[in-house]
Amino acid sequence: MLDAASSFISENFLTLKKRPNDRTIVKVGHVSIGGEKAVVIAGPCSVESKEQVIETALAVKRSGAAILRGGAYKPRTSPYDFQGLGLEGLKLLKEAGDRAELPIVTEVMSEEDLPIVCDYADMIQIGARNMQNFALLKKIAKIRKPVLLKRGLSATIKEWLLAAEYILQGGNERVVLCERGIRTFDNSLRNTLDLAGVALVKELSHLPVIVDPSHATGKRSLITPTAKAAIAVGADGIIVEVHPQPEKALSDSAQQIDFNEFENMMQSLKKPLRELL
Amino acid sequence: MLDAASSFISENFLTLKKRPNDRTIVKVGHVSIGGEKAVVIAGPCSVESKEQVIETALAVKRSGAAILRGGAYKPRTSPYDFQGLGLEGLKLLKEAGDRAELPIVTEVMSEEDLPIVCDYADMIQIGARNMQNFALLKKIAKIRKPVLLKRGLSATIKEWLLAAEYILQGGNERVVLCERGIRTFDNSLRNTLDLAGVALVKELSHLPVIVDPSHATGKRSLITPTAKAAIAVGADGIIVEVHPQPEKALSDSAQQIDFNEFENMMQSLKKPLRELL
Amino acid sequence: MLDAASSFISENFLTLKKRPNDRTIVKVGHVSIGGEKAVVIAGPCSVESKEQVIETALAVKRSGAAILRGGAYKPRTSPYDFQGLGLEGLKLLKEAGDRAELPIVTEVMSEEDLPIVCDYADMIQIGARNMQNFALLKKIAKIRKPVLLKRGLSATIKEWLLAAEYILQGGNERVVLCERGIRTFDNSLRNTLDLAGVALVKELSHLPVIVDPSHATGKRSLITPTAKAAIAVGADGIIVEVHPQPEKALSDSAQQIDFNEFENMMQSLKKPLRELL
Amino acid sequence: MLDAASSFISENFLTLKKRPNDRTIVKVGHVSIGGEKAVVIAGPCSVESKEQVIETALAVKRSGAAILRGGAYKPRTSPYDFQGLGLEGLKLLKEAGDRAELPIVTEVMSEEDLPIVCDYADMIQIGARNMQNFALLKKIAKIRKPVLLKRGLSATIKEWLLAAEYILQGGNERVVLCERGIRTFDNSLRNTLDLAGVALVKELSHLPVIVDPSHATGKRSLITPTAKAAIAVGADGIIVEVHPQPEKALSDSAQQIDFNEFENMMQSLKKPLRELL
Repeated sequence: MLDAASSFISENFLTLKKRPNDRTIVKVGHVSIGGEKAVVIAGPCSVESKEQVIETALAVKRSGAAILRGGAYKPRTSPYDFQGLGLEGLKLLKEAGDRAELPIVTEVMSEEDLPIVCDYADMIQIGARNMQNFALLKKIAKIRKPVLLKRGLSATIKEWLLAAEYILQGGNERVVLCERGIRTFDNSLRNTLDLAGVALVKELSHLPVIVDPSHATGKRSLITPTAKAAIAVGADGIIVEVHPQPEKALSDSAQQIDFNEFENMMQSLKKPLRELL
Repeated sequence: MLDAASSFISENFLTLKKRPNDRTIVKVGHVSIGGEKAVVIAGPCSVESKEQVIETALAVKRSGAAILRGGAYKPRTSPYDFQGLGLEGLKLLKEAGDRAELPIVTEVMSEEDLPIVCDYADMIQIGARNMQNFALLKKIAKIRKPVLLKRGLSATIKEWLLAAEYILQGGNERVVLCERGIRTFDNSLRNTLDLAGVALVKELSHLPVIVDPSHATGKRSLITPTAKAAIAVGADGIIVEVHPQPEKALSDSAQQIDFNEFENMMQSLKKPLRELL
Repeated sequence: MLDAASSFISENFLTLKKRPNDRTIVKVGHVSIGGEKAVVIAGPCSVESKEQVIETALAVKRSGAAILRGGAYKPRTSPYDFQGLGLEGLKLLKEAGDRAELPIVTEVMSEEDLPIVCDYADMIQIGARNMQNFALLKKIAKIRKPVLLKRGLSATIKEWLLAAEYILQGGNERVVLCERGIRTFDNSLRNTLDLAGVALVKELSHLPVIVDPSHATGKRSLITPTAKAAIAVGADGIIVEVHPQPEKALSDSAQQIDFNEFENMMQSLKKPLRELL
Repeated sequence: MLDAASSFISENFLTLKKRPNDRTIVKVGHVSIGGEKAVVIAGPCSVESKEQVIETALAVKRSGAAILRGGAYKPRTSPYDFQGLGLEGLKLLKEAGDRAELPIVTEVMSEEDLPIVCDYADMIQIGARNMQNFALLKKIAKIRKPVLLKRGLSATIKEWLLAAEYILQGGNERVVLCERGIRTFDNSLRNTLDLAGVALVKELSHLPVIVDPSHATGKRSLITPTAKAAIAVGADGIIVEVHPQPEKALSDSAQQIDFNEFENMMQSLKKPLRELL
């Protein structure tokens, strides 16, 4: 329960508790995460082709996204699934970011790939499956790039914060946390989005926290309501998967939205909340 | 996954699928749940004394609550915990509702108690632990009162809707669903609030859905952000535990808020969402 | 974690801790549960017809079962599923028990049905979904029949023992616990069989504990290995679903075994464990 | 549910389904895992000192262990916990294995460390937190050492088998699976031991499967009953943590057993099962 969690944090977290009244703001290029306004990160699940990623970059920029996302190295449950374009994907993502004037974030899966990913990306993502890849966390702690640390599928709040602590105490204080749904008994949706956990993490740490409604729900029609709820609960932003033709995507087809749906989501985020009776 | 859930619903739910384009509005006294505006239900976890419940009723009314809640028959994990005031609690709750001019909702735990609870309450609550008490559901289907059906601690969306279906197909169509947190591996908080599940249930059924941030989080400071997220995700209202002196409450002390905190929460629900970058 | 559980038990359980060095033996008819030897309870999921239940009773008796099980009142997730034969089923089960000279155990789902079920059954089962139906537990505490208390789908060890405590402290000390699988993220099988939990409960309480491999796995081919593991971990017996023609069963078809498979299981339980290298 | 799992396996697993009627036997030094007899692997959680590991190696050998385990590189939730002796630990483990004439198994956490670990170890362990570290799996697929692949904390049976498939299809067919408890809602014990999952995996694949009762339960007194249940359910062996003075261990103190307890466990594994009534 929470009291145990709180005392655990205050006893154990050396770096996280450094600044009790001061929130960290992480700069990615010219974009601030954790400041007064919420940030929207958007882009395709996987980089698939030059046209796909450039077209998407320009579209999400037009609708108001501040950072471009896209996967080049893809963690896939099966070795027979599409594994990403690798270095070629990195280059295409970088080109798209430059064209749209958006900083880029992409996942690194391997200690070995870290230097090359750092050459191209403005922000490095640690995926859910690597949240406790401690060898990778220790290496990430030594680089000079901001890090997007996704919560593991079955990571408790404590474990997530301690994974961040590996990076912070190792020397890299530019960490943004990302809630992307946890694994529970209910498989009605891809995962269970833990928005109360987001509010709790905002209390327990000074780090920015964003939310990934795409992986959390796995379902197109739920992206907008859950994105709005994320902002309402206090998240510092969202990261959303957008694809020119989601039904033809090489990965995560069911959860990517098209340009029109993304524009509608952005409009919806600006509308006021439903009135009370 | 969801496609299975959707086809399951369309194949199996006879009553729930009756009205595909039409949302149900449930009237509790003069209050409509499921209409244009969101409803706030508030009151103590347990009815403890005349002063406590009347004072609370007047306070939550003043801040904008539309329905009064309060427990007379209490489901408690241990037989040695406070079990509620029973009939005496029912009477006090009714008196408080009358004084504040608020309809009242309270839990029934036993088939035997159902007639007496119906004599006093405007809306009958089925608690999480009784969501699959099928004998009770079948009896509830025969009464002429609206029902608040809480989701079971480990109920899937399908099971929750099928529990509602027991009531609907038995003849009582005045069902409001209530998400109150599910049980997962993470015990940082009392439960895990499943707000994406709320959005999904709104898609799959025509019934109103409300959210209980008190039981979902078990933590006072998280009530306001999660209540706001509930409205943002599309819930038709919230149900919140309020107590004159939460630290002295006979049950659920850590999650009840005082009158001042409740007023602040109501104000917060009216404020616009954080702006985007 | 466990230390917390242990101290919780010693502080809170008044009745369960009464006899620290003494294990309870529960007599059902002439059969002792919790003594030196392990008991096998067997029979159909649902009583479907006179022939079915009598034929099954005689077959399981022949192979060595000591108690006959069978459902007359069935808890079903959907109101459109077969709900059991009710009183007619009770009578048939009793007749089959008499013919095979086996005591019978059957589930009660409703406070109202309790007297009639007590008229026929030698042991009363509280199903997983009613483990925290406190109104029913309080009534069960007042009867003079042994009780088989199944663990709830998402009940912790503490909650399960406290449900037993409702019965014990209310005056009925003849409680046998039954582990039947818990609900987890993994839906490869119907439930997740928690055999370490069985060993833990045997440490924390003096009550007998049996295991239900049928509901735990939901899969015919796994009944024998998990039944054997249950005995190995220290369970005082098993309860197994047996049907003359499982593929034609009105409920739980995939997990019922036929007479031949039951006989093979019984033989397998008598064979020695695999040797070590 | 299982039917989906089975069809999934037969459609997707290219390497795992190669030999439907033929079970794989993995040789580690002179020891066969997956053959007629069950194997016992034992040793300390962490290698702490020369005396500790040699003394333990000789003791577990004397009682019948066939392989020595010990951690040199330790995955720890917190960066402030003991991280293992690294290369020095590897050397000590190797020396202890030589002295006791036991092959050794130890965990690798980093792609970078793989060559050095291969220089010393007879079998390479992939820990639960790295089960989906796909970069590491792809490298492990290219080495010529047997692999002990632990199940992830929240890995489904499918995901576990697909992680094995990464290694098999990459060219290394010497994979032994290890169930070590999964993460569920119940924190009465460290994890929930999924023995039915072991039986299921034995059906779905031709690979040997062993069980780790130490991590599964986290509790000394439950090691023996769960080890016995593991053999009963069909596991090809167990892996157990043993320490000269568990209460002084630098990691996992509560779950390590001493030499005397280990000897008692080995004796218990040879005793027949409890008789049936």
